[in-house]
Amino acid sequence: MYGLISKMKTLPGQRDTLVGILVQGSKAMPGCIHYIIAKDIHDEHTLWVVETWESAQAHQSSLSLPTVVEAMARGQPLVAEVERRIETLPVSIASCN
Amino acid sequence: MYGLISKMKTLPGQRDTLVGILVQGSKAMPGCIHYIIAKDIHDEHTLWVVETWESAQAHQSSLSLPTVVEAMARGQPLVAEVERRIETLPVSIASCN
Repeated sequence: MYGLISKMKTLPGQRDTLVGILVQGSKAMPGCIHYIIAKDIHDEHTLWVVETWESAQAHQSSLSLPTVVEAMARGQPLVAEVERRIETLPVSIASCN
Repeated sequence: MYGLISKMKTLPGQRDTLVGILVQGSKAMPGCIHYIIAKDIHDEHTLWVVETWESAQAHQSSLSLPTVVEAMARGQPLVAEVERRIETLPVSIASCN
């Protein structure tokens, strides 16, 4: 498996709009296991995206999907900075209840 | 919903042992939606845990479950430092394929 944890700073007032774009763009991505979008509780401009993929290749391939290309084009202007982009190796992803 | 993203530095050589403890301890936690354990690809001592809960209360209650209390007691000596503990408001957690 392959994982990404990204921290994005949005332009003021644009976080909800970016959430909508990311939700739309992440709907049908082969090989994607989780695509969690979460607002930072203590910083109103920060968004966290946690992705789990079957493989790094599956993630790489997704970047050329029309829905993803469009979402990135629409979302990028709303992002002031991608502050963190952490690559991970997920070792346990079981739902826990 | 309520979320946590935690970055833990383990003592040298203890990351896999901590993973085993966390997997055991996170098996049956009412109100827990995701408990993702992931190794940092670029730092052999760093572990990331991404949690999604139905509520902050559900998370708080889990801390007194016997399995969690035991896992924390066994795991804490293996953790050099909890470097980051980010509280989030998950807004989209749909599986994406």
